[in-house]
Amino acid sequence: MTQTLAPIPPADNRQDLALAERLFDALRDRTGDGTGIWRPSYGPGESLALDIVEAKARDLGLATERDAGANLVVTLDGREPDLPFLACGSHLDSVPQGGNFDGAAGVVAGLAILAGFKRDGIVPRRTMKLYALRGEESARFGTAYMGSYALLGLLKPADLAAREARGGRTMADCMREVGVDVDRVARGEPLLDPARMAAWIELHIEQGPVLVARDLPVSIVTGIRGNLRHRVVECVGEAGHSGAVPRWLRRDAVFATAELITHLDRHWRTLLERGRDVVVTSGILSTNPDEHAIARIPGSVRFSFEVRSQSRETLEAFYDLFLSECTLIGEERGVEFKLDRRIDSAPATMDAGWVRRLKDAARRLGLPDEEMPSGAGHDAAVFANAGIPSAMIFVRNDHGSHNPGEQMAMGDFLAGVAVMRAALEEAKDE
Amino acid sequence: MTQTLAPIPPADNRQDLALAERLFDALRDRTGDGTGIWRPSYGPGESLALDIVEAKARDLGLATERDAGANLVVTLDGREPDLPFLACGSHLDSVPQGGNFDGAAGVVAGLAILAGFKRDGIVPRRTMKLYALRGEESARFGTAYMGSYALLGLLKPADLAAREARGGRTMADCMREVGVDVDRVARGEPLLDPARMAAWIELHIEQGPVLVARDLPVSIVTGIRGNLRHRVVECVGEAGHSGAVPRWLRRDAVFATAELITHLDRHWRTLLERGRDVVVTSGILSTNPDEHAIARIPGSVRFSFEVRSQSRETLEAFYDLFLSECTLIGEERGVEFKLDRRIDSAPATMDAGWVRRLKDAARRLGLPDEEMPSGAGHDAAVFANAGIPSAMIFVRNDHGSHNPGEQMAMGDFLAGVAVMRAALEEAKDE
Repeated sequence: MTQTLAPIPPADNRQDLALAERLFDALRDRTGDGTGIWRPSYGPGESLALDIVEAKARDLGLATERDAGANLVVTLDGREPDLPFLACGSHLDSVPQGGNFDGAAGVVAGLAILAGFKRDGIVPRRTMKLYALRGEESARFGTAYMGSYALLGLLKPADLAAREARGGRTMADCMREVGVDVDRVARGEPLLDPARMAAWIELHIEQGPVLVARDLPVSIVTGIRGNLRHRVVECVGEAGHSGAVPRWLRRDAVFATAELITHLDRHWRTLLERGRDVVVTSGILSTNPDEHAIARIPGSVRFSFEVRSQSRETLEAFYDLFLSECTLIGEERGVEFKLDRRIDSAPATMDAGWVRRLKDAARRLGLPDEEMPSGAGHDAAVFANAGIPSAMIFVRNDHGSHNPGEQMAMGDFLAGVAVMRAALEEAKDE
Repeated sequence: MTQTLAPIPPADNRQDLALAERLFDALRDRTGDGTGIWRPSYGPGESLALDIVEAKARDLGLATERDAGANLVVTLDGREPDLPFLACGSHLDSVPQGGNFDGAAGVVAGLAILAGFKRDGIVPRRTMKLYALRGEESARFGTAYMGSYALLGLLKPADLAAREARGGRTMADCMREVGVDVDRVARGEPLLDPARMAAWIELHIEQGPVLVARDLPVSIVTGIRGNLRHRVVECVGEAGHSGAVPRWLRRDAVFATAELITHLDRHWRTLLERGRDVVVTSGILSTNPDEHAIARIPGSVRFSFEVRSQSRETLEAFYDLFLSECTLIGEERGVEFKLDRRIDSAPATMDAGWVRRLKDAARRLGLPDEEMPSGAGHDAAVFANAGIPSAMIFVRNDHGSHNPGEQMAMGDFLAGVAVMRAALEEAKDE
């Protein structure tokens, strides 16, 4: 512990709590899908969530607008508006049957902090902005971080042409419908000058089990895993009667795909034993529902592929293993693995100065100042890779994310808000 | 070659050819589903196929009726109607996107033979019946041979309660709709006295590649593989964010299922190396479309399981391996494999007398008299296991079955018809 930093006395956070409970309840009630919540990227549930937060921000006397990416921006004007502004926030979209806190926690945290400054009559030197971003989740279009990519002019024509997983509309069409300036996005024109953003601070629930297992309310993120993906790999074999084709004449797409995945699992285990950071997932897998049958040798299987790591080199090494397994198993089993476009998300390092500042704030608040890498990707990685000093606070959350069972205690959330507020308070007049 | 049998001179089969071409064309044109043909068991496409064949049989002057199982029965009355009758035929249903010849070939063959006898004014001693059976394929309800099972009072309440794979109607409802006497079937009452059926002779396309590979137009079947099945095995793990849960905390249903299938493949190979007859298939496999996503660890996978063998003992041995792999992998990976009802189809042996008679007929016609086991199951197995002397003729067919690419040359079909006619001609007055 650093001796020179004065402790921060516990603040009255009843207003933070009331605001958070009301907003989380409203989001849950109005964007539920029966099982969990569903706020599809650039779709109606996401727009509704932006509307709910915007209405609350206006109630609290804060200025709001929609930027050219159709994100919600809440502003607390600073005394020197020409200085680069401090940004915080997160995303408001979700996966189908998702949880209420993934993304929304960071937006609510930012609103609580800006509203607190406003209430206390604080006018910071630098303008402060809260971003409620759209399109962070890949569930709808296969691409993640669409909101921050669009702001930085990084979405590619192939991204914009991608069709939604359910229904066949393109990302570009869905973006246009909610007010994105798609022509500028398609030209690769940044909608935001990264030099104008002095920092990006994002609070998010931890999406894994580590804080629960280690009994820590919050942690400070040091880096974010990137990933390589294929939305659809198709294994093409040959259909046939299940009773009548002997093993040596089969070109069975299920056996081939099962062997591929089992080999990937073995490579994964080996890399872990060598101390590499890596996770591998095939979240979507299916025989062809138009032709599959119990008594038919499956002629095709479609599945998704994803590898994540904090290291670019590990990502590429695992990807090479994946390609060579596809070739070897394809040759041995008489099948072909057809890959769609590879989608890359680069790993990112959080800003050392902001990591230190957040850790100091945690300590001064009497909280643990544990560092942790983020296994999941975040818009913070996109901002960091664009040169914007970025940092993240994780809040303990049980049962993981991307499922309706997410469980974040309000006490932990308020601890995270307090850390973020203390750090922003310190930075706002620099 | 037996010297005592006189050769059979080549007959004029132009009328067989004309009849077969017209019937196959009508079936293909009127029961197509865009890709292949679809005559769902106890559904409209199957009923239409029965109507097409019945109309043709009446045109040809043959008596027709629907039995209590709603099958089509075409009768050529014999001189001594109290004697057990000779039966031939096959089924008229199909899998989705199926081929036109699987099943229909045997029905058309039987009609050609009965029509020929009628045309030639032949009145056999024994009555001869052609059965166009319903419900042979398992694609719709998971159970195969429903038509012959129902005739013999062997359908179980659980079979009748099974719901169709697409849509949620029960087998009983669909049977009742096409005229099956479901009450009798539900009581397990035979709709047919097996002692009345002197023989069951079924011509069928080979559903595997052996006759093509060995350049044989026809072969005589000696035995039929049985099978053990589960329509749905569910692997239940735990969903979670794909980036945030490390390997040691995962309960990934796709990795577990892939490992299970890969182990089954290994056991399969080992049994083949030991000379056992066995094939293994998982024709249907899918993550849950309501919740799966690229970035979500798959919490559940559903798949079908099937093992086939000519040996009951091999079936049970492989099934035991399957169960123990489910337990072991379940324990190791923190998942559970939940099995639905096991469905059994017993292997069957063809009648030695009829096999000899068919082989003799083939030789006398100048055709090869090759023996072969049937990898696929057939209604003939059900009749055989009920004590009815049963036999089958396979006709060469390219590209397997259960797919629209089935290819049976008319010359090969006519060869099969000639073999069957010669054998029935010999038996009809015994």
